[in-house]
Amino acid sequence: MHGGGPTAVINASLYGIVDEAKRSGAFVHVYGSHGGPAGMLSGTYIALDEIDDDVLAGLRDAPGSAIGTGRDALGGHYPQMVEVLVKNGIDVVMLTGGNGTMNTCALLQEACREAGADIQVIGVPKTMDNDIAEIDHAPGYGSAARYAAQSVGEVCCDVHSMPIHIVVVEVMGRSAGWVAAATALAEQCGQGGPDLIYVPERAFDEEAFLADCKRLIEEKGGGVVVASEGLHDAEGNPIVDPIMEVERETYFGDVSSHLANLIVARLGYKARSEKPGLLGRASMTLRSERDVDEAEEVGRAAVRAALDGATGVMVGIKRVSGEEYAVATDLIDVERVRLIERLLPDEFINEAGNGVTQAFKDWAAPLVGDLPQFVSFL
Amino acid sequence: MHGGGPTAVINASLYGIVDEAKRSGAFVHVYGSHGGPAGMLSGTYIALDEIDDDVLAGLRDAPGSAIGTGRDALGGHYPQMVEVLVKNGIDVVMLTGGNGTMNTCALLQEACREAGADIQVIGVPKTMDNDIAEIDHAPGYGSAARYAAQSVGEVCCDVHSMPIHIVVVEVMGRSAGWVAAATALAEQCGQGGPDLIYVPERAFDEEAFLADCKRLIEEKGGGVVVASEGLHDAEGNPIVDPIMEVERETYFGDVSSHLANLIVARLGYKARSEKPGLLGRASMTLRSERDVDEAEEVGRAAVRAALDGATGVMVGIKRVSGEEYAVATDLIDVERVRLIERLLPDEFINEAGNGVTQAFKDWAAPLVGDLPQFVSFL
Repeated sequence: MHGGGPTAVINASLYGIVDEAKRSGAFVHVYGSHGGPAGMLSGTYIALDEIDDDVLAGLRDAPGSAIGTGRDALGGHYPQMVEVLVKNGIDVVMLTGGNGTMNTCALLQEACREAGADIQVIGVPKTMDNDIAEIDHAPGYGSAARYAAQSVGEVCCDVHSMPIHIVVVEVMGRSAGWVAAATALAEQCGQGGPDLIYVPERAFDEEAFLADCKRLIEEKGGGVVVASEGLHDAEGNPIVDPIMEVERETYFGDVSSHLANLIVARLGYKARSEKPGLLGRASMTLRSERDVDEAEEVGRAAVRAALDGATGVMVGIKRVSGEEYAVATDLIDVERVRLIERLLPDEFINEAGNGVTQAFKDWAAPLVGDLPQFVSFL
Repeated sequence: MHGGGPTAVINASLYGIVDEAKRSGAFVHVYGSHGGPAGMLSGTYIALDEIDDDVLAGLRDAPGSAIGTGRDALGGHYPQMVEVLVKNGIDVVMLTGGNGTMNTCALLQEACREAGADIQVIGVPKTMDNDIAEIDHAPGYGSAARYAAQSVGEVCCDVHSMPIHIVVVEVMGRSAGWVAAATALAEQCGQGGPDLIYVPERAFDEEAFLADCKRLIEEKGGGVVVASEGLHDAEGNPIVDPIMEVERETYFGDVSSHLANLIVARLGYKARSEKPGLLGRASMTLRSERDVDEAEEVGRAAVRAALDGATGVMVGIKRVSGEEYAVATDLIDVERVRLIERLLPDEFINEAGNGVTQAFKDWAAPLVGDLPQFVSFL
């Protein structure tokens, strides 16, 4: 079952799960829940083991979630879900998602135990935001980070060609600035990278921002600013007023648009806003190959864990120390992950709160992979 | 000299010009004007013939403009520019740009003639907006179109996974809807393509838009809407009020943000806005290979035209009739191109004004190239 928004590699994890399960010969059937929790609750399944291998392999290159996903609250429906699982003879449930989905894992496992149902529940990490606790990084992050870094690198070339405006690029990440921070790697492209980066881990100070922009204009004539969608002020209020609340969700206005307007209105200088938004988690061409491989491997590790009898765990990714980048998977009690948001640590954010440190770049570079270097004669 | 905003292939045309000029052996030097008209006026040149061939070849893969570009008004400075060109021994001037730049070509040539200076002036077409008159399509368009089409195709997969909102994607094109129209090709990706497309060639009717969106929500639970940045109402007023005028330019607010807010406020339904903006003209990974090849060839044709003694012309691209797509270059009097905006013809827009026709898709498909088909089990 997939929970929450897709990533560029959520289907790669699904491929790893299905392929490993089929290879093991230990499972009678492998089903996908159609559309997340709602599908699991109603017993609406997709028979993944009956799909041709070459079609299944296409999952590695498919954006979105090939079995759908959902954000429905399961509320008090856990006992009912257990009944449906038992009725359908399901022995193992795997949930791919973020820390909210790991909470679902914990609640579902509790409900199974209470009902005396012998069902294993295993979490598979997934988030472009990279805010899952206890792991080095989450599948989906490397691709979102690569998309943001190379796109910003290309935009830097464009702006460098004709520095007549400040371009504000908004990237996803409501509570954590991991993706915004990754745009610092755009400097690899050869045009200096973004001039300023603002992350939600620091309170946003409008006057400091305008002073930063004014200096940028005076020194370079223009430049590139990256802003997380979740910026808020010192009181914790989002810098753009919520436009409306729909059901449980708040609809926020665009941060990039707001900041560009602010530059125009307060500094009298040209500014543009760009907000690739969903493009950043759906792009197949700008994703990280390492991320695809790791996402698939995390899916395979979940199947191996199931065969070992594990339950109530999430597959983790830890770095193996050594000169070359290497990772290994492990198993983490979902209790240690559920609903905990992992934010950028202090040592990854610069002192002025408008950029990142070398330590962050060193950490993020292997996840993003090498970026192309672009020719310029300026 | 480059004029106006870059495209994904403006440097490919520059590569064609420099390489063809060097191969011809007919030129003593090949210079690039540093930063558009301002560089040409001040005699600030980049010696392109002195750059290593392998570095030069990198121009084919470089976003932005490698020699810079500019939007400065030349105003009454044409006689002065002629003086600078004569003083520096320049015999041929090539200007890469849109219909505004072709106007510059015409004015510069006139100034040369009045000054008795024997200088050839040749225009090289370039615009992601595709609004240059007299040609089948402009270099830069195919890449912007491919970026928009595949990106929207990927977003359609994302939204199809969890249809809980309407996503409004804004694409560039202030007067002409060529890029917005190209997103219809996203249907090749296998998730239906965008549900609604609005172009500036039709007056935007807010009530009709909301009725379209309401139907979309009722029928599918959500979907993807594409909107040109230049939408205006029946009186010709932009649908988003200008925020500020800076020098000669008007700064408009974001159309996607405005429309998403409208859906939330008026329909009480979730909506997101995405505005890739500059990313769409800077992306190297999602450009059209055919566009790169044609842009290079247009540059080479400009050099051949110069060797034939032509002046006051722009290189054109026309389709050669036949079963397979093929083009040929020709030469067009710049007088027929200057300042004329080429809009989408009626036969390319559907009757309701919220989509395109098959005739448009047939025309655009070879420029964009085949898009990947994505696997989904929904």
